[in-house]
Amino acid sequence: MRRTDLALEAREIIEGKEEISGVILEEENKYGNLVKVTKMKIESNHGSQIMGKPKGVYITIESKEERKEPLLKAIVEQIKKIVEDKGIKKILVVGLGNREITPDALGPWVIDQLFVTRHLIKEFGQEFQKKYNIHDISAIAPGVMAQTGIESGEIIGGIIKKLDIDGIIAIDALAARKVQRLYKTIQITDTGISPGAGVGNNRKVLNKENLGVEVIAIGIPTVVDAETIVEDRVESSLLKAGFSQKEVDIFINQMVHGEDRNMFVTGKEVDEKVKNLSEILAEAINISFVKAFTNLS
Amino acid sequence: MRRTDLALEAREIIEGKEEISGVILEEENKYGNLVKVTKMKIESNHGSQIMGKPKGVYITIESKEERKEPLLKAIVEQIKKIVEDKGIKKILVVGLGNREITPDALGPWVIDQLFVTRHLIKEFGQEFQKKYNIHDISAIAPGVMAQTGIESGEIIGGIIKKLDIDGIIAIDALAARKVQRLYKTIQITDTGISPGAGVGNNRKVLNKENLGVEVIAIGIPTVVDAETIVEDRVESSLLKAGFSQKEVDIFINQMVHGEDRNMFVTGKEVDEKVKNLSEILAEAINISFVKAFTNLS
Amino acid sequence: MRRTDLALEAREIIEGKEEISGVILEEENKYGNLVKVTKMKIESNHGSQIMGKPKGVYITIESKEERKEPLLKAIVEQIKKIVEDKGIKKILVVGLGNREITPDALGPWVIDQLFVTRHLIKEFGQEFQKKYNIHDISAIAPGVMAQTGIESGEIIGGIIKKLDIDGIIAIDALAARKVQRLYKTIQITDTGISPGAGVGNNRKVLNKENLGVEVIAIGIPTVVDAETIVEDRVESSLLKAGFSQKEVDIFINQMVHGEDRNMFVTGKEVDEKVKNLSEILAEAINISFVKAFTNLS
Amino acid sequence: MRRTDLALEAREIIEGKEEISGVILEEENKYGNLVKVTKMKIESNHGSQIMGKPKGVYITIESKEERKEPLLKAIVEQIKKIVEDKGIKKILVVGLGNREITPDALGPWVIDQLFVTRHLIKEFGQEFQKKYNIHDISAIAPGVMAQTGIESGEIIGGIIKKLDIDGIIAIDALAARKVQRLYKTIQITDTGISPGAGVGNNRKVLNKENLGVEVIAIGIPTVVDAETIVEDRVESSLLKAGFSQKEVDIFINQMVHGEDRNMFVTGKEVDEKVKNLSEILAEAINISFVKAFTNLS
Repeated sequence: MRRTDLALEAREIIEGKEEISGVILEEENKYGNLVKVTKMKIESNHGSQIMGKPKGVYITIESKEERKEPLLKAIVEQIKKIVEDKGIKKILVVGLGNREITPDALGPWVIDQLFVTRHLIKEFGQEFQKKYNIHDISAIAPGVMAQTGIESGEIIGGIIKKLDIDGIIAIDALAARKVQRLYKTIQITDTGISPGAGVGNNRKVLNKENLGVEVIAIGIPTVVDAETIVEDRVESSLLKAGFSQKEVDIFINQMVHGEDRNMFVTGKEVDEKVKNLSEILAEAINISFVKAFTNLS
Repeated sequence: MRRTDLALEAREIIEGKEEISGVILEEENKYGNLVKVTKMKIESNHGSQIMGKPKGVYITIESKEERKEPLLKAIVEQIKKIVEDKGIKKILVVGLGNREITPDALGPWVIDQLFVTRHLIKEFGQEFQKKYNIHDISAIAPGVMAQTGIESGEIIGGIIKKLDIDGIIAIDALAARKVQRLYKTIQITDTGISPGAGVGNNRKVLNKENLGVEVIAIGIPTVVDAETIVEDRVESSLLKAGFSQKEVDIFINQMVHGEDRNMFVTGKEVDEKVKNLSEILAEAINISFVKAFTNLS
Repeated sequence: MRRTDLALEAREIIEGKEEISGVILEEENKYGNLVKVTKMKIESNHGSQIMGKPKGVYITIESKEERKEPLLKAIVEQIKKIVEDKGIKKILVVGLGNREITPDALGPWVIDQLFVTRHLIKEFGQEFQKKYNIHDISAIAPGVMAQTGIESGEIIGGIIKKLDIDGIIAIDALAARKVQRLYKTIQITDTGISPGAGVGNNRKVLNKENLGVEVIAIGIPTVVDAETIVEDRVESSLLKAGFSQKEVDIFINQMVHGEDRNMFVTGKEVDEKVKNLSEILAEAINISFVKAFTNLS
Repeated sequence: MRRTDLALEAREIIEGKEEISGVILEEENKYGNLVKVTKMKIESNHGSQIMGKPKGVYITIESKEERKEPLLKAIVEQIKKIVEDKGIKKILVVGLGNREITPDALGPWVIDQLFVTRHLIKEFGQEFQKKYNIHDISAIAPGVMAQTGIESGEIIGGIIKKLDIDGIIAIDALAARKVQRLYKTIQITDTGISPGAGVGNNRKVLNKENLGVEVIAIGIPTVVDAETIVEDRVESSLLKAGFSQKEVDIFINQMVHGEDRNMFVTGKEVDEKVKNLSEILAEAINISFVKAFTNLS
């Protein structure tokens, strides 16, 4: 199986571009055509099965040029909308991943740059909250199981109860199929997330069913399975050379499978990219929920 | 008040060296005289009041030279003893502090280097645990309230219940009175700890009373209040110059109080020192509880 | 001797505020009073001796509030002026210090953020340089002698010849006398600099005499000698208590000298402060010499 | 062209395994079969042309398991031998690459961990050098041209003259063809090196011809060109499927060339791998030249 965490790529894998019943796709170019926002809704079990993704909404934001401002605006717009739609007020932002492994550090690094307010609201009261028109934001980077011995879901579950949280925003690094997608696509979904999925470690899914509160997941691809790079390119080359899809599938199945199966690769510029993306995501979340304080700084 | 987190320094402040009723002090030189271990027991309320520290045991380990091995041995010996005395089996190691501020990063950096076992025991069963004779270890670096909006105690409290923990080892950076003590003294106590105390932010105490399980705190001084440096040196100079203790106290109270009140300073070599100490503490904990695996690596 | 790298503090040490012949002091409040710029000119050998500093110009920029913009403007103004006065065109920016020791890392971290142009001008020619109105900028962080076995002056000397440099801007961390000055004062001087002076290692001075080209040094205090903190506070307290300056001097000379002599301390917030200051200095240098490119980004 | 910095891989590309005249290959398994050392000598111009590599010796060290000790021993043995063969006494170790980009940081990180002696020998004299039987070692991490505006060769050239160096050991990250080779092969050669070649930026070669002194280059692959991953796998799959080499070459030439041409990828574990490798290389150099001091620590 050629693996991807991006619903958009999962869609591309499915033959051609013909309709899949129960999967609705809307595309929109925004901000002077600099950002493309795609909304995919998987509505039926059939669509979910074909796509290999749970039912729900998947929003994909792609920046056409390396320009920060339109991208930031698009992320803020989508975050605010989805959080409003769900009616979430007390938010716990969760930064999944291992901060010591750069391509997996997106989540924790976002947490480091958030402006949290829960303790301030607790101290100064709801009038303070109203005056500045801010959300109740708390945050945690729970670490990964190899570091803590604890599932992220167990840590978060405890906090949700203790703090009476009504929604989670979970940030994580994802795996894409194409090297060119690395660092360039932001996916926002209401279907939750499996911690560590992006880097090959499947954990219990963090979603509404398991945690009892809404889970908005925001992810950006930072790794690619080396195997998928090969398979995708072989496929397009063979199709171009006149082979049928069926022949191609057989060829790929019989292909020499390298030891690089399950080897995830990332770009050589990973340090700078993950740093920049963590800054943009943190800024987007700060603007979305505590705008008054971002203006001050 | 001249502030210190070290019971040993608190003891030194008290006039002279005469007995304080309810405070028992034992000193021992170990490992070829390279390490000095001091055990202070505060047994009475009176002793506690005079010392300004809760009742309990305070073990202080001081390395006379910069030699890793004897120091490591002494720490392992004391950790194993206190954990055995308390009968703790399922341990959550908590790394308090802010990993972005080097002198406050001791706790989180220790966590990064621990060998945790809870998830392995959960997966491979108690026979695995028996075979390798390991403790059930989990770990977390909860972050500080300014980063998370949540008190460390709230995060830990949730985990304790969820995981059925029966004891906590909390690691934190401390404040000393003397620049020369920086990075050189390890304090182990069964009285718990106030997160952030070392760097001037008092939070709810993490102790048995508040958390319902034993709390062993391990701390190392990484900061000094600039004010206490001055006061201590003025005191010793004036005493040497023939003034009485009373006169000295009056002088100090009337002294020009700099704007450096509440300014904590650290040594210029803080990066390397905190890195090294976090390695030693992590190794000591790994040897104490999961020796089989430290041998393997 | 109470040590300082700041000419301004050296001036304060000298008794009272009476005139020192050959030392001229001008103060100016700028940018809506938010920044204080002090220009000290040491013109005579007598002034140089009393001050313990070489003859030349010392500009000190102090920000009254933690506001970036006015500070940045003031630095740019002073750098441009001094470089223009000296008629320097081909500039080598040298980041002195050890990037692994945060309070000593200011210089190397500035280098990391510079926009250099020498290689571009070499490739695209002088028309490119004229079109964008940029200086010819190259940069190096030579490391410290304990890392390289080589004096900074030897490394720089080789480059100056090879590249036909006509002026150096050397960035280094300095030592101040007062904890409150840490991170808050920017000193720009045309008298050169001793690498490592700030952290207690005196090396051969980098100045016009030794290197054959103009040397502009930019420094910011990031460490304080623990001893000077004590001595300064004792002095002001005893003076306030009615002792004469002479009595105070005798007292201080006879004072208990702690083992903290030659212990440099820094603030606990050193990580963030040095990071921010390195960003501001780098931005100031970029704006001063390659403004066209800073606008683009 | 499928690009590699490894002579061993260049050899593999050449059809079959038949003899190439002027290229001599010796393989040896050492240290209980844990390490494989391959020595390739390119002796003729013909061999050099076919291989696409300059004439000279290429030693490749491959560790079969992840065991540090045998690998370290093998590196020390080869470094000592090649340096002795060349009769180099005063050595400048050069850490090429950009320390801010982890897969390119190998060289600078090695420099950070070296024990340099030039300044000590200068201070304590040749008796000191004899007593401890140490080499005269200095070191520099010159940075990359985008950071400094200066070619590495220009910086090094200046230092060589000033310090009367008679040989250079240059450390750099390399590009491999196979993901599985990442971090696992150490290449030592006397043919010099092109700074930045590994990450796609060709600079003037650092070799004996250009610098006037012996240049030993030590490199480890940390990146792979995404394109070569694909081409190699397609080739082996098609050959296995019965196509002829000629047909395969045509197919690959006509293959869909992705936008990932010139995209270098690295493993997701790059942080830890480059850190470990830099420690091993630094330790090997320290043992080779200043053993007395490595024993002390």
